[in-house]
Amino acid sequence: MKLTSHGYGKHRVRLSKITRHPDRHVFQELTVNVVLRGAFEDAYVEGDNASVLPTDTIKNTVYALAKEHDLTSPERFALDLAAHYMKTVPHATAAEIEIFDKPWVRMVFDDKPHHHAFSGGASERRTATVAHTRDGVTLTGGLTELPILKTTGSAFVGFMKDQYTALPEERDRIMATMLEARWSYGNASDGLDVDFNGNAVRLRETMMRVFADHESESVQHTMNAMAEATLAACPEIVELTMLMPNVHHFMYDLARFNIDNQNDIFAPTDEPHGYIEGTFTR
Amino acid sequence: MKLTSHGYGKHRVRLSKITRHPDRHVFQELTVNVVLRGAFEDAYVEGDNASVLPTDTIKNTVYALAKEHDLTSPERFALDLAAHYMKTVPHATAAEIEIFDKPWVRMVFDDKPHHHAFSGGASERRTATVAHTRDGVTLTGGLTELPILKTTGSAFVGFMKDQYTALPEERDRIMATMLEARWSYGNASDGLDVDFNGNAVRLRETMMRVFADHESESVQHTMNAMAEATLAACPEIVELTMLMPNVHHFMYDLARFNIDNQNDIFAPTDEPHGYIEGTFTR
Amino acid sequence: MKLTSHGYGKHRVRLSKITRHPDRHVFQELTVNVVLRGAFEDAYVEGDNASVLPTDTIKNTVYALAKEHDLTSPERFALDLAAHYMKTVPHATAAEIEIFDKPWVRMVFDDKPHHHAFSGGASERRTATVAHTRDGVTLTGGLTELPILKTTGSAFVGFMKDQYTALPEERDRIMATMLEARWSYGNASDGLDVDFNGNAVRLRETMMRVFADHESESVQHTMNAMAEATLAACPEIVELTMLMPNVHHFMYDLARFNIDNQNDIFAPTDEPHGYIEGTFTR
Amino acid sequence: MKLTSHGYGKHRVRLSKITRHPDRHVFQELTVNVVLRGAFEDAYVEGDNASVLPTDTIKNTVYALAKEHDLTSPERFALDLAAHYMKTVPHATAAEIEIFDKPWVRMVFDDKPHHHAFSGGASERRTATVAHTRDGVTLTGGLTELPILKTTGSAFVGFMKDQYTALPEERDRIMATMLEARWSYGNASDGLDVDFNGNAVRLRETMMRVFADHESESVQHTMNAMAEATLAACPEIVELTMLMPNVHHFMYDLARFNIDNQNDIFAPTDEPHGYIEGTFTR
Repeated sequence: MKLTSHGYGKHRVRLSKITRHPDRHVFQELTVNVVLRGAFEDAYVEGDNASVLPTDTIKNTVYALAKEHDLTSPERFALDLAAHYMKTVPHATAAEIEIFDKPWVRMVFDDKPHHHAFSGGASERRTATVAHTRDGVTLTGGLTELPILKTTGSAFVGFMKDQYTALPEERDRIMATMLEARWSYGNASDGLDVDFNGNAVRLRETMMRVFADHESESVQHTMNAMAEATLAACPEIVELTMLMPNVHHFMYDLARFNIDNQNDIFAPTDEPHGYIEGTFTR
Repeated sequence: MKLTSHGYGKHRVRLSKITRHPDRHVFQELTVNVVLRGAFEDAYVEGDNASVLPTDTIKNTVYALAKEHDLTSPERFALDLAAHYMKTVPHATAAEIEIFDKPWVRMVFDDKPHHHAFSGGASERRTATVAHTRDGVTLTGGLTELPILKTTGSAFVGFMKDQYTALPEERDRIMATMLEARWSYGNASDGLDVDFNGNAVRLRETMMRVFADHESESVQHTMNAMAEATLAACPEIVELTMLMPNVHHFMYDLARFNIDNQNDIFAPTDEPHGYIEGTFTR
Repeated sequence: MKLTSHGYGKHRVRLSKITRHPDRHVFQELTVNVVLRGAFEDAYVEGDNASVLPTDTIKNTVYALAKEHDLTSPERFALDLAAHYMKTVPHATAAEIEIFDKPWVRMVFDDKPHHHAFSGGASERRTATVAHTRDGVTLTGGLTELPILKTTGSAFVGFMKDQYTALPEERDRIMATMLEARWSYGNASDGLDVDFNGNAVRLRETMMRVFADHESESVQHTMNAMAEATLAACPEIVELTMLMPNVHHFMYDLARFNIDNQNDIFAPTDEPHGYIEGTFTR
Repeated sequence: MKLTSHGYGKHRVRLSKITRHPDRHVFQELTVNVVLRGAFEDAYVEGDNASVLPTDTIKNTVYALAKEHDLTSPERFALDLAAHYMKTVPHATAAEIEIFDKPWVRMVFDDKPHHHAFSGGASERRTATVAHTRDGVTLTGGLTELPILKTTGSAFVGFMKDQYTALPEERDRIMATMLEARWSYGNASDGLDVDFNGNAVRLRETMMRVFADHESESVQHTMNAMAEATLAACPEIVELTMLMPNVHHFMYDLARFNIDNQNDIFAPTDEPHGYIEGTFTR
């Protein structure tokens, strides 16, 4: 038997940090996944742990580095974490970091941002992933679990049919999705002098704006338009992957009760859902 | 054997509705629970379903009434639904309705609200419950699953101790909770001429404002202050029940690594959590 | 403003225990909720915590008592925990305990039970609740989240109809539910000399057996039959509450494709579901 | 901009089927994911849906084929589904199928298997995946979400240390994981004459047996031993991928209360968890 690939680390390390400025507190909450790859075969094959930095240590490291580094962006912290593990574990050939940044929104009263109170609850997470190897570093930013929906401007007609096709052509339907996007910065070996936070805001807004205004012939069609605008909005991005499940709102059959459903009463459903993905480069 | 209490209905009926105004579309998404009580013993004891309006019909009714009524507020729709079932099922002694209103937020670009595009994903739900009996109608509004958090202004000292007490006194800690509140309008038999939506906004803001600014000695202490302001803000409310779990952010032990955790690096955790509840009247 | 009711405690305290016998290890995993009620108003109204045993202490107590007591049954441990808090906190008027017992099943190889290896993953939990006041103690056992299903022996005909009724009468349908049952032992002030574990096994099997064999006219009808057998099987039970949601498996419309669905191809769905409850006494 | 990769389909198609034998009913419940890849660019780039078989049709097809085929195994059904889509959609270059098989266990009373009643609730799913391209077909079987645990026979010592290492060496600890395994049958172009169900049972038992009896120096060490036995048990398997998160049960600190925790009282936790993976070939 051969061990052809392996990796280990710690998943779902949850971390929060307060940064106290004179005029306001900043509060951040991250979930961090770490996987190390490299020469750890002895642990598997021989039961010899000499090469294994414990996953408990991997966890402690996340908290220690969160203390010592400014968490200016999840991208920067992912780069820092990966570089640290590669330095600490000389026999590692790769460190893979994935960060989910949970949005806490500062409360505002009478148009005044509050000094230290926040509300949360959004499903959306900003994401960053780093793959740091001995040959280079690649970095992606992204967002996930952002539900967006439009009540018109979406059609689905002229599609292929076979013997199991019953779907009527629809010229005006709800388009709802749970947006996931990952934008790649490509090679980040030299650290990158990029405004990650500014980009994340701009890319998110660009996607939402196109989603809202696009005259859509399908989810695929809208995804393509969103990708085009997103790549145009940020020259630093080299590749974009998008996932846009089609979350269905089915028109409810009220004709049975002599009620005319004027395309306004629906049953939303989580499963099944359409699955639509695309990867775009320049 | 005696059947001392019973009820049946449909839970988790999911409904969405588009209302098309010339200048904008309104989009609403509700989840509705319905339970009927009354003389349904024959179904249990005899297997005779003559008294049982099917739960499928109960479901259809939610969609049919959503078409025919303006969904101006979850409170109003809950009252309408309950009244309908009580009329349709003469042997029902009670109709209990619970509505969860999922917030979809209109997208805004260049300070202009979009005509028909929305984003979602908040865990928070606005709630309404109605208990309609032959003797009267009671109504509550509310909100649930709203995470709020403050980074200072929260202490916990001077508490009772026993042999299992290890908690240090803390004068400056994170206070985080998942707010649930139910405000009772009391008797709603005469329909109530109340601005339910305006109240929901005002009560929510009042709770958040007190939470943010209160110098807290405990979650209980802050809940009491929130309740006082909430009841004061809305004379139509006769009773308020609040649930505020204490969601812990534990200071992470970095001293082991010769790092001084200056009360700024934490491990947030979902379980276990403190459980704090209170019910307040005038 | 008046504080008309209040309570506090710790929820979702997760605990596991190994008991090492010479011939085998026993492994148990519980989740415990504790709520105390009584004279804690000063914490709310005055911000004075002198009466408040911290929820952290409440948590520690669960682990300490788990060490010192045999966890022979969740019912017994719930009684012990409640009694402890009532003794420790003299101004408490009630201690409410809720325990969820997660089943781990001993692995068996070649018909031989393994000494110390277990598999898990069942959604089912055995439950115990205690309400201990200065006037008495009440105790329930129970089970929750047990999916049971039968492919025949279930009809639903002869039901009430109104203008929104479209459901066809069905003489042979799938009956699927997620069983929850709570059986009350009534007054447990004198400790009760009852075989809680034996009862839990017998009551569970009785319910499943009746569910399986009953010629059902409705979920209500089957619930009643299950209740009758359950109360008969255990004279110590004074009351039984059952919750049996109707989890739908809808026959899929294949006629559109000239395929005859012979009542054998279905789409199962989690929401919405029928809601059916009943409480039974002697 | 270039569309470098894309795919679409339907996820979470839930299906149940009754097969009525004279002596017993068989009940199966599957969740199916389908993704098609190929020449669907026009939908993205041009908004032309002529090449797009609707995801609604993809869903209907799952139900239609479930009616027409015996669901003898998830592997066989995945192969059949993939072949169907490749035939129906000539411009598809790949059909990817993923099936999750939910276990329903026949009820047994007095040692007699019941004719038509089942219980469920296990988190475990048997899995099958097919990647069918114009060049060949690959097939995997597997299982996921199976919690297994042992109370002894697990150590973790002799590991690498750095400045953030605080973990004590442990010679006797709980080992708990949520097992996921995927076994590859390699090329399945010629249909394969394999007893998929027999293999699934044998491989599962082999893994559990090794897990139970292995004197473990780490999760990695045990995974390797499980893999070795699994590959040995089934010559038809060409590759095995395993995922075994380390689900922690932390010994609870009772020394603070002068109680000696004899390695028997723990706090189990879901996050964070160790992440351990390996892929094994011959």
